[in-house]
Amino acid sequence: MTDKLVLHEYSASGNCYKVRLTAAIVGEHLDRREYDIMKGETRTSQFLANVNANGRIPVLQIGDRFIPESNGACYFVADGSGLIPTDRFDHADMLRWMFWEQYSHEPNIATLRFWMRSIGVDNLSDLQRVQITPKRTAGNAALKLMDEHLSRRGWFVADHMTLADICLFAYTHVAGDADFDLRQHPNVLQWVERIKGQPRYLAMNA
Amino acid sequence: MTDKLVLHEYSASGNCYKVRLTAAIVGEHLDRREYDIMKGETRTSQFLANVNANGRIPVLQIGDRFIPESNGACYFVADGSGLIPTDRFDHADMLRWMFWEQYSHEPNIATLRFWMRSIGVDNLSDLQRVQITPKRTAGNAALKLMDEHLSRRGWFVADHMTLADICLFAYTHVAGDADFDLRQHPNVLQWVERIKGQPRYLAMNA
Repeated sequence: MTDKLVLHEYSASGNCYKVRLTAAIVGEHLDRREYDIMKGETRTSQFLANVNANGRIPVLQIGDRFIPESNGACYFVADGSGLIPTDRFDHADMLRWMFWEQYSHEPNIATLRFWMRSIGVDNLSDLQRVQITPKRTAGNAALKLMDEHLSRRGWFVADHMTLADICLFAYTHVAGDADFDLRQHPNVLQWVERIKGQPRYLAMNA
Repeated sequence: MTDKLVLHEYSASGNCYKVRLTAAIVGEHLDRREYDIMKGETRTSQFLANVNANGRIPVLQIGDRFIPESNGACYFVADGSGLIPTDRFDHADMLRWMFWEQYSHEPNIATLRFWMRSIGVDNLSDLQRVQITPKRTAGNAALKLMDEHLSRRGWFVADHMTLADICLFAYTHVAGDADFDLRQHPNVLQWVERIKGQPRYLAMNA
């Protein structure tokens, strides 16, 4: 890697943590640049023009180029490492779990965590409030699907840790912050401990 | 490719169309198996046990193995073709647009299209109804972001058509079904025509 990597992030975000954990596991250094999303620091005209027109973090900067979207940034960091399967089926299967994470897991579990931990239940809008129950139902269904998948295997794809595990781990291991009970999903809990036991594991608040 | 490919689908779905369009452009044959999602045919115990525990289509079957998630299935079909950039940055940039599509585009534009065209506005639940305006706002923001990106280039990534274009095209070119006005996004309209003009282009209803 010749270009310096800079992670534009809000460090409490699980989506940003994914990129840090990926870098730790593959042994890549990231410079970090913190933005306070609660103060709108990713919605400034400077950020929108130069970092991400979508106004979101994380964004991975590679030299003078930028990759938004957490799972895209993780892929760049992990590309060429053992986290990316070379088998055609396993590779697509890894991506399918990463797409599933963004569609069926993150909008439920991460969003509830953000609403409960960062905004606060008392400060939610009516539109947010009416979505709490459906998001809880969908979040529990996502955890149940993960638990059933892990009842037959140690990792989501193939027989070793891949980027799919890292991307799914980020918000799963802190799902308790949004009052999801991981004890109801024992295979998920074991898998969480399996990842925490990896030699280069990096904690979210590290 | 040695294993036969079978697409488990609901053909009116843009997510299923993506996989058919990808296969057409790379010259790959797909067998097709239709399910009526309005009759719950993807929620049967047989489907959940054997095809996709998540109860959704499309699912790509490769021999006796399955890849759910439209963008994961598309990647399997396109792997090794000119639709997948080999440059490390371009490849991650392609994936970032595909993740963005599933997070910021599909849940707004495709969902409104489904609600308006398949369920019908009069049949929506209160929870769905209250989400119409925010989804319209977010859908228009997604189209605006695409339009600005395409003001400087002909394709989303690199200087040629990639899988990101196909995945974004599927619901964009029928956004009018959900009363989005593509004439407000002239660069998007030109890009839509550019894709329709590709030699192996396959229409959604073909």
